[in-house]
Amino acid sequence: MAKEKLTTRAENYSERYNDLVKQAELAESSSVRGCMVIKPYGYAIWENIRDVLDAMFKATGHQNAYFPLFIPKSFLSREADHVEGFAKECAVVTHYRLKNDENGKGVVVDPEAKLEEELIVRPTSETIIWDSYKKWINSYRDLPLLVNQWANVVRWEMRTRIFLRTAEFLRQEGHTAHATAEEADIEARKMMEVYSDFVRNFMAIYHYKGEKPAHERFAGAIHTYTFEPMMQDFKALQAGTSHNLGQNFAKAFDVQFTNKENKLEYVYATSWGVSTRLMGGLIMAHSDDNGLVLPPALAPIHLAIVPIFKTEEDLQEIMGALEEQLAILKREKLVINSDFLEDYQIPVKIKIDDDTNKSPWRKFNEWELKGVPLRITIGKRDLEKGQVELYRRDTQEKQFVALEDVAKIVMQNLADMQSNIFKKHEQFTLDHTYTVDSYEALKEKVEQGFVLAHWDGTNETAMAIQDELKATIRCLPFDLEDEEGVDPYSGKPSKRRVIYAKSY
Amino acid sequence: MAKEKLTTRAENYSERYNDLVKQAELAESSSVRGCMVIKPYGYAIWENIRDVLDAMFKATGHQNAYFPLFIPKSFLSREADHVEGFAKECAVVTHYRLKNDENGKGVVVDPEAKLEEELIVRPTSETIIWDSYKKWINSYRDLPLLVNQWANVVRWEMRTRIFLRTAEFLRQEGHTAHATAEEADIEARKMMEVYSDFVRNFMAIYHYKGEKPAHERFAGAIHTYTFEPMMQDFKALQAGTSHNLGQNFAKAFDVQFTNKENKLEYVYATSWGVSTRLMGGLIMAHSDDNGLVLPPALAPIHLAIVPIFKTEEDLQEIMGALEEQLAILKREKLVINSDFLEDYQIPVKIKIDDDTNKSPWRKFNEWELKGVPLRITIGKRDLEKGQVELYRRDTQEKQFVALEDVAKIVMQNLADMQSNIFKKHEQFTLDHTYTVDSYEALKEKVEQGFVLAHWDGTNETAMAIQDELKATIRCLPFDLEDEEGVDPYSGKPSKRRVIYAKSY
Repeated sequence: MAKEKLTTRAENYSERYNDLVKQAELAESSSVRGCMVIKPYGYAIWENIRDVLDAMFKATGHQNAYFPLFIPKSFLSREADHVEGFAKECAVVTHYRLKNDENGKGVVVDPEAKLEEELIVRPTSETIIWDSYKKWINSYRDLPLLVNQWANVVRWEMRTRIFLRTAEFLRQEGHTAHATAEEADIEARKMMEVYSDFVRNFMAIYHYKGEKPAHERFAGAIHTYTFEPMMQDFKALQAGTSHNLGQNFAKAFDVQFTNKENKLEYVYATSWGVSTRLMGGLIMAHSDDNGLVLPPALAPIHLAIVPIFKTEEDLQEIMGALEEQLAILKREKLVINSDFLEDYQIPVKIKIDDDTNKSPWRKFNEWELKGVPLRITIGKRDLEKGQVELYRRDTQEKQFVALEDVAKIVMQNLADMQSNIFKKHEQFTLDHTYTVDSYEALKEKVEQGFVLAHWDGTNETAMAIQDELKATIRCLPFDLEDEEGVDPYSGKPSKRRVIYAKSY
Repeated sequence: MAKEKLTTRAENYSERYNDLVKQAELAESSSVRGCMVIKPYGYAIWENIRDVLDAMFKATGHQNAYFPLFIPKSFLSREADHVEGFAKECAVVTHYRLKNDENGKGVVVDPEAKLEEELIVRPTSETIIWDSYKKWINSYRDLPLLVNQWANVVRWEMRTRIFLRTAEFLRQEGHTAHATAEEADIEARKMMEVYSDFVRNFMAIYHYKGEKPAHERFAGAIHTYTFEPMMQDFKALQAGTSHNLGQNFAKAFDVQFTNKENKLEYVYATSWGVSTRLMGGLIMAHSDDNGLVLPPALAPIHLAIVPIFKTEEDLQEIMGALEEQLAILKREKLVINSDFLEDYQIPVKIKIDDDTNKSPWRKFNEWELKGVPLRITIGKRDLEKGQVELYRRDTQEKQFVALEDVAKIVMQNLADMQSNIFKKHEQFTLDHTYTVDSYEALKEKVEQGFVLAHWDGTNETAMAIQDELKATIRCLPFDLEDEEGVDPYSGKPSKRRVIYAKSY
């Protein structure tokens, strides 16, 4: 495949995103409308995301399980808010058999194999899971029930973009049951902290945490918590939410338990999820005009080594000189600390790119595009000088490193890069977060970033601003003190500021 | 939940299987016909299976990717043998939207949202994957392409049994592309060796490896390799196959590559898969009348500790006495060796069962049912003697172990148990494998195990025996020398023996 030019961020941010997904070989569209193929390099990043999150879920006491792909249509009607609020664009299974076409033209759907009740391909699993929980929960001794599922879900989106909005996507969904309202809220908030910790320490993405306003809640939730990072085009990407569902699903599915006072009570629930949408966030938070920039904590390859050689003997000699340092690196671990995983250890993954079919230039370009954190180039001349050239992806800086220091310097750079990428994104976000008090300022600044403005708490104001500015209230941030003020749109009194932004 | 009696193996093997799946909390039926819920304990075993296999696939150069859940109906017609041979019982998506019922009774399918072309929920992914490979493969430099996918698939089975035959199940499917016919066959055989290695060294299950006769091949394959273990009721369980697909799929999806001689040629393919059916094999190979017996290499819990205490102080004292040994065990690894994974290290997982809501008797029963390899009981009296009681699940033997030896003896027992369970299953299989030369003997012995008998190589004979004895040719075993003989059914000459057995 010939190298195609990567659209710059300034030219067209949206087109550039598509270019990057394609050229870095992360994913591509499939022959099925709205469904993506996640290619090996993209899937390797997703595996890293999944493995870390899975470890965090287990560290906080959750177990994985697996529930059916299909949901009987009637289940979707049980929880009133859920059916009302949840999008109706779903894949519907109506038949269970094909048959050979009588005209010999392949297969047709057998009209006699019609299901009595249609099945919906799960858009989310609350209903089918609560149908099981009814059997699992009898007493307070069965609580809390802390379960997570990794699975594919389907929402028949009309306008799709790879990773950001696809008909089928991969996700995890936690579904927990508790004996008290308070416990459920603690769980929903804790899982938001888990996401936040992951996004900060592994994805190296700065973000605001808070609660969604009532009109932006998940269908059936009484509180929805969210984290909102800023993308390079200043838009917010909602990439994970955690819901306190109160007793709504328990009532809909009649899940009661005997409490310690021996009385029957409805169970309190939470659900929380992140998806392959995180991949979109990873791309749009860090990449530059040369391609992807991956935080080492999630990179499938940490170090690409490009030996410059003409003969097999040259190659042997070069790789021989690196042998000792590579052996050290094979034992080294990149350590990431977080509030939920102490000393998460990541083996250093090295790609030796000695392919004779590609020019060094082409190799540099490939690893650059794919965001590999470090690259070592070494030829015969370097060997004579006892050095290698080390290139660092985030700063685009080159340095010469003595052969005997390679392992040490590589590990230092990986650790430094992980924190540098975060700091860069944090600075970018802070530089584009504005506090405003007039509607004019809100209007202007919401084109350039996140805006902290007063809100009177009414739907009317939120909807009017959404109509006029195409911006929404992303969240009521947790770490903002209550403050008396005036809503810049309605002029009504306000008790606090919220974050307005355009969003994906 | 009150303890229910577990049906013994002799009483009713089939019912006992269902009891075991339920009482060991592995899985249960869902409200969706034929779809199972895999419960946390069952899913934890599946995660262990998946993690080991995934490591083996990566060690043999494969990468994971993800392809769409849906397959356009027309794709299934492309490969002639595939459409002819593959079961037509599939879930068919015909619509993409629900709407509120006009009578206010929940949701109905929106008749206006009918798909132009129906989508099939993947029963297997050859067709959708080869549609992508067409874009990925141009030159011999793009080969071999070694990709695996972990995913759910759906086959609308009429009679279902948890893990053994369910409408939806979890699986991996490898799909590889090669430049030569020979390479593809080496790959297909290698992946069968990977499965065999896993089944032997991790699942501790003895089995025969071989090739399926032509009439038992996968639809579209030119060779299908299989491993066939014997269950406790003497039936074979086909739980994994590897297919050399020749150029059939490449031709159907027009995937050609420029070979080294600069000529266009169709690609050679393989596919191979195992599924949650392995869970069924694990249950039926090792369990006894008391419940599940799990090989330590795949057990979610290795050691259950049941302290016998009346007061919180007793508990503190008991656990305090064990502290040092538990700290050692926390650092210990169970090491499994295989041809594909050198020194696969498994952390020792310990469950301290200090629940005051359950009697010790009930705890013993639970860990027995769940097949936890080792159990330690320790009370105040043991403490005075400086010992614990160690119970081993496979042999059902108890021994007293001095406190200071606990970690050492636990590790020894885990390693010994892993090999003992395999040897037991090997012996059982060999004891019930018969070599016969008459049809009468075949008829008798096929009720009692696997039968090695001559086969004339014809479909007619295989079909006649299948009709009369309900037994099939499981495979043409690899490690059986060619031998001139006479087919016991047809009296025709035969070049080799095959394995006949009843099967799941």
